[in-house]
Amino acid sequence: MAAEIAEQPDRLQELADQGFSEIRAVGRQLEKISPRFVLLVARGTSDHAALYAKYLLEIRRGMPCGLASPSSFTAYGARPDLRDVLVIAVSQSGGSPDLVRSLEVARACGAVTLAVTNTPESAVAAGADLHIDVRAGAERAVAATKTYSAELMALYLLIEAWSRPAARDSEVLGPVDGLVAAAADLVGRRAEITSIAPRFRFAAQFVLTGRGYNYPTVLEGALKLMETSYVAARAYSGADLMHGLFAQIDRSHPVVVVAPRGVGGEAMRPVLQKLDERMADVLLLGDHEFLPRASSHFALPKSLGDELHPIVDIIPLQWLALEISVARGLDPDNPRGLSKHTQTM
Amino acid sequence: MAAEIAEQPDRLQELADQGFSEIRAVGRQLEKISPRFVLLVARGTSDHAALYAKYLLEIRRGMPCGLASPSSFTAYGARPDLRDVLVIAVSQSGGSPDLVRSLEVARACGAVTLAVTNTPESAVAAGADLHIDVRAGAERAVAATKTYSAELMALYLLIEAWSRPAARDSEVLGPVDGLVAAAADLVGRRAEITSIAPRFRFAAQFVLTGRGYNYPTVLEGALKLMETSYVAARAYSGADLMHGLFAQIDRSHPVVVVAPRGVGGEAMRPVLQKLDERMADVLLLGDHEFLPRASSHFALPKSLGDELHPIVDIIPLQWLALEISVARGLDPDNPRGLSKHTQTM
Repeated sequence: MAAEIAEQPDRLQELADQGFSEIRAVGRQLEKISPRFVLLVARGTSDHAALYAKYLLEIRRGMPCGLASPSSFTAYGARPDLRDVLVIAVSQSGGSPDLVRSLEVARACGAVTLAVTNTPESAVAAGADLHIDVRAGAERAVAATKTYSAELMALYLLIEAWSRPAARDSEVLGPVDGLVAAAADLVGRRAEITSIAPRFRFAAQFVLTGRGYNYPTVLEGALKLMETSYVAARAYSGADLMHGLFAQIDRSHPVVVVAPRGVGGEAMRPVLQKLDERMADVLLLGDHEFLPRASSHFALPKSLGDELHPIVDIIPLQWLALEISVARGLDPDNPRGLSKHTQTM
Repeated sequence: MAAEIAEQPDRLQELADQGFSEIRAVGRQLEKISPRFVLLVARGTSDHAALYAKYLLEIRRGMPCGLASPSSFTAYGARPDLRDVLVIAVSQSGGSPDLVRSLEVARACGAVTLAVTNTPESAVAAGADLHIDVRAGAERAVAATKTYSAELMALYLLIEAWSRPAARDSEVLGPVDGLVAAAADLVGRRAEITSIAPRFRFAAQFVLTGRGYNYPTVLEGALKLMETSYVAARAYSGADLMHGLFAQIDRSHPVVVVAPRGVGGEAMRPVLQKLDERMADVLLLGDHEFLPRASSHFALPKSLGDELHPIVDIIPLQWLALEISVARGLDPDNPRGLSKHTQTM
């Protein structure tokens, strides 16, 4: 897991170098097809990547979209009218039977389908009209890390390419250097997380919160903590946390807040204020100024656009999950009860 | 809270008796408008009602739809092309500033807007083209109960009316008698939950799981447990639980499974089998035959259609949240740190 976390800057660079022509070509196809809506379908870690894409599509592309419920298609036999709809399946392994079936149904209902996977030879990739390979290389750790950031980067580049058909390749790829440098910086700061992790040695529960683009980041961070350390980690958008969930937050419940400088971070101010009032123990990833009294703090890149943050902000949470697992004497590479591929139908 | 839980059969009956003509009229409007896509926008408990509507729209109406991210519109200024789109806001209080703002933006972007609220004089209701009053009466308990089942019933009747324009009123209302009887049965079986609750007196964490139509039920059940008893309750669709979350489930973690007879319950079989293998402590709401070795069991109605179950299956979970709160010496009517109305922007 540590090796795969550390690989991420290289994998992101390679995806931009070797994968962009494929991504650009898919973007041109989408421009031609000109769908009116997008449905995203995914499970687990890839579902968090799909949620990131949903924010990008809504905000950057002005495209209404939703996350599909696979069971509607598979268990209940829903056959919605999907003409004018683009269905995007996101899957690391490309092997989930329910995603394969959802794509079959979507095509039969008139949708254009796109698969974003790490396995071009998979059933999900084969079953879609269009495919993008996220090129993260073989992933051996059960807890997905580099495939997640690669999915995010591929979806970011695709939606930018699709949204800016007249832009030159170099313009769409403009943020890549900064992103790769930020990823390298965050990968290199593992020691900061190593020193923060021990205070969570005996924490049984975690609440993670962020807003907007970084809502997927806290969902994915919570999943990593659960997969590697068996803790009860729950992730909420900052807005939902304000709705009824503060009842249970007190000094004994660590709260991890992701609030980098920017619109999403600013929107976390009222949440941080309320956490402060409730004397919550806060690990703040982001702008220290948002909560100077935070119990611990880890700085996030300061010059990335809001929409780019999720691609790299997950890295300290990957380290955190790994380090807490190690601090507890567990083996993050071999979580009990899990296997790499899940067969849901 | 107990009084409001017990009121539910009467409120559902009244909604059908007094609210159906309004619902039917909105259904006819929607048929005329004929949107191509539905976006739902809500927070907290009402977000679970919106998710139920999403399943109904996909499965019963064949309509692609998604849950909107309010922050895309409010914090990030997204201005998607919403011509042909119906935006449905679901809100008990009708007062959330971010919902009001989301509806404003949706209208400006070309959407037709519908508000489903318990407060016809609210800003959300006033800001929408169409409105449905769920007629649950004033709700005083901080933990919403009767407004939730009323929202579900209103959305069910609306989507049925819209999907079957040629059906007579009596046909669309056909299931109401059975639903009200089922609600009365479940309300009357509080004592069964009272006897089950004490074994959870010291449980710090709960996992709740269900699939399909009852996925919203477990999300809402988890929220009730958190609001009233300050426990770390997490809800997952059965399919997501198979993806990476089994690592943390063992004998010390109570799992509440909602699996009534039907398609959704059948789809829970592999999840129940895996829970059994991991010796999880399972409270099974539903068909006992699905897991005869469950630690405790509460039967759910056997003759309701899958799509009707969520309207009443929440009732034993409302009782459970209340009884666990009482067993812990807490006051479910006055959860700490919460107020009835939340102002998120």
